[in-house]
Amino acid sequence: MNRREFNLNLIFAAGAVAGPKWQSSSRLRINSERVNAHLAELSQFGKNPQGGVSRVAYSEADLKGREYVMNLMREAKLEVSIDAAGNLIGQHEGSGQGLKPLIIGSHIDSVPEGGNYDGDVGSMGAIEVAHTLAENNVSLQHPLELIIFQNEEGGTIGSHAIAKGLTEKELNLVTNSRKTIREGIKFIGGDVDKLATVVRKPGDLTAYVELHIEQGGILHSEKINIGVVEGIVGINWWDVTIDGFANHAGTTPMNQRRDALLAAAKYIEAVNRVVTSIPGRQVGTVGKLQAFPGAYNVIPGKVTTSLGLRDLDAAKTQLMFERIQEEVRQIERSTGTKFEFKQTNSTPPAPTDLRVRRVIDETAKQLGFTTKFMPSGAGHDAQEMSHLGPVGMIFVPSVDGISHSPREFSRPEDVANGTNVLLHTLLKLDSTKLG
Amino acid sequence: MNRREFNLNLIFAAGAVAGPKWQSSSRLRINSERVNAHLAELSQFGKNPQGGVSRVAYSEADLKGREYVMNLMREAKLEVSIDAAGNLIGQHEGSGQGLKPLIIGSHIDSVPEGGNYDGDVGSMGAIEVAHTLAENNVSLQHPLELIIFQNEEGGTIGSHAIAKGLTEKELNLVTNSRKTIREGIKFIGGDVDKLATVVRKPGDLTAYVELHIEQGGILHSEKINIGVVEGIVGINWWDVTIDGFANHAGTTPMNQRRDALLAAAKYIEAVNRVVTSIPGRQVGTVGKLQAFPGAYNVIPGKVTTSLGLRDLDAAKTQLMFERIQEEVRQIERSTGTKFEFKQTNSTPPAPTDLRVRRVIDETAKQLGFTTKFMPSGAGHDAQEMSHLGPVGMIFVPSVDGISHSPREFSRPEDVANGTNVLLHTLLKLDSTKLG
Repeated sequence: MNRREFNLNLIFAAGAVAGPKWQSSSRLRINSERVNAHLAELSQFGKNPQGGVSRVAYSEADLKGREYVMNLMREAKLEVSIDAAGNLIGQHEGSGQGLKPLIIGSHIDSVPEGGNYDGDVGSMGAIEVAHTLAENNVSLQHPLELIIFQNEEGGTIGSHAIAKGLTEKELNLVTNSRKTIREGIKFIGGDVDKLATVVRKPGDLTAYVELHIEQGGILHSEKINIGVVEGIVGINWWDVTIDGFANHAGTTPMNQRRDALLAAAKYIEAVNRVVTSIPGRQVGTVGKLQAFPGAYNVIPGKVTTSLGLRDLDAAKTQLMFERIQEEVRQIERSTGTKFEFKQTNSTPPAPTDLRVRRVIDETAKQLGFTTKFMPSGAGHDAQEMSHLGPVGMIFVPSVDGISHSPREFSRPEDVANGTNVLLHTLLKLDSTKLG
Repeated sequence: MNRREFNLNLIFAAGAVAGPKWQSSSRLRINSERVNAHLAELSQFGKNPQGGVSRVAYSEADLKGREYVMNLMREAKLEVSIDAAGNLIGQHEGSGQGLKPLIIGSHIDSVPEGGNYDGDVGSMGAIEVAHTLAENNVSLQHPLELIIFQNEEGGTIGSHAIAKGLTEKELNLVTNSRKTIREGIKFIGGDVDKLATVVRKPGDLTAYVELHIEQGGILHSEKINIGVVEGIVGINWWDVTIDGFANHAGTTPMNQRRDALLAAAKYIEAVNRVVTSIPGRQVGTVGKLQAFPGAYNVIPGKVTTSLGLRDLDAAKTQLMFERIQEEVRQIERSTGTKFEFKQTNSTPPAPTDLRVRRVIDETAKQLGFTTKFMPSGAGHDAQEMSHLGPVGMIFVPSVDGISHSPREFSRPEDVANGTNVLLHTLLKLDSTKLG
């Protein structure tokens, strides 16, 4: 048992069943037109002429989008505030006593030249859930908290401020808005001097559930409605340097070369071979590469490149890395080059709570949807929130698996489906008999 | 028969043999200490603290080096001038009547962070030959012309000005000195308005012979004294663009990727495989590569790279290119990417004159040296001069085949050997019975 299972142990005690409140609310449905209209309206803030959106955290567009979102939250009868870290908080009291909040939410900041679904679907979906509850006069036993986390794309900054706190070093990082995080927090209405007030303790929440687009193409290609996220994969990045020997491309015979780029080519193929030779959904990517000196007529003497490995299972990632290292030793011998790996990121996997997963899956099926258990290959605020308590994530299909692109798209019916699953997951988590 | 064989048809008429002049001069030897001392002195102009030299054309170091060289030429009893293109010309009258000059020479400009042998050995060697003739009162029947061509490393500019003339476009090219060629020519004492005066016609020379370091490792590794150059390989360069699809490296399954960098890796291996699978001394190089957008967490959607193929036989180069294209079609299919090749350079092979080759080979052997016939993988001023008449090139070993590097090195005895071969090749070409 780990700390994030604290509260749900109570909810999911032996024999726990969905209580009368959920039975009475089971025909409740969100307003599909409204949530999709809100998505369309939100897309105006930071809209790019060529399509998509650039609403990077701490930009003018971000600020305007947040004002729009706060109005929507007020319309959904939430009490709205901005915490010291700049997160937008919407609250609604629960009818029960001494219960920790159920939290839903996502983010509205985008990558530069991004799309209108990553973060936005979960944000508009969470507000729609609150709106649906309010207009139907359904109140939860648990306090409901809706958080629009600031600067997710810059490294889940807002949720990190809540889960762990921000360091001086993090506050001084320069973001895509060209503001530091410190400046950005001030810009969006936070108060850096009071950051300590936003840090929460493990056990401070009943559960956190986030709706999000898949950002991959599995649900789309397999024609599945809802992805039940098993966890957020661990992310490991390395900088890789390959040293060969730069020499004249005209005068150096093929068998006397120490070509760093030929070694890099063999390495890229080896990464692909190792990652695809093991059963599972792990991914491995060589995303960066530059050859030096980089001329037609010079054999590359040096290459800088990278390695990224992601999986839910840290042991499998370790295995892949070791196999890649074995291949690299052979490449070094056959090409007369030398590789160096320097790890630059090692984020451990964050599994979702087994029982929240089950609630999401059952809820989706009861609503008539097909489901698939799957990892999240991307990082999310849920990853940070998993340090505080049980988390779950609901994925909806991304058409053609395209994300972080103006071509990012999720169909309106999928947005509505996901929002209904979020609504009923919340109701079920709330009404399940406690203790 | 092509135009570059005009004059030597006379020299090598059936039954032609080396005449009395060469017989009497056969014990003549260059001064090894002097030529190597001159090499060391020249290395001071543009010397880098970390070793080697940066004496790029039209730099202050180039200008100072040229002044030093003109003094050496005067010491060798040559009449020195700067032609309108900025080439340094040293002349000595011949005793014969109506004969076209025998030309020797090379260049003293270097690549940035280059070495002290590429060009310099041939330049100091040619001056040493003239000095040896002068101090021994040996005069040739043919006029002797010694040319230190300007800006060889920037594309054999000085020799091109003589062989073909410079276009406006070429004059406007910005060089490593940050000066245009036009500005550079003025800087080193040329006169751009009179460039037409330096252009020569085919047949304007008896032969051009250039001593040079091999720049490859064949002579060094095979312990051979002298390389007899069969020709300068054709050089073909292409810019290559690979289009895939940039997508999220965490959320896109391995089998749904269109990874331009994985395609590039397969391409680089294919180039190596095709080039090494055909017997011969051809080379193929992928020297440039950059992946876009170039982030740990984005599958590369685009790669810009290159292709360079060199061989003495244009048909073989064409065959290699076609085989690479066949492999590329398969890579496109297996990776879902699209390749585009745009040729940026196509310099045809320039064979040396068969009979000059034979004279060099015989001369070297008579001097007691081992020889090997070989292509020149690098471009040289001799390539330009081959448009005007018969050319030959003498190679001396480069230790470990290193060139265009501060670690470039040729042993003093090899410099001396090559210079003696140049001397006696010149004497033999001069004294062979004409007609």
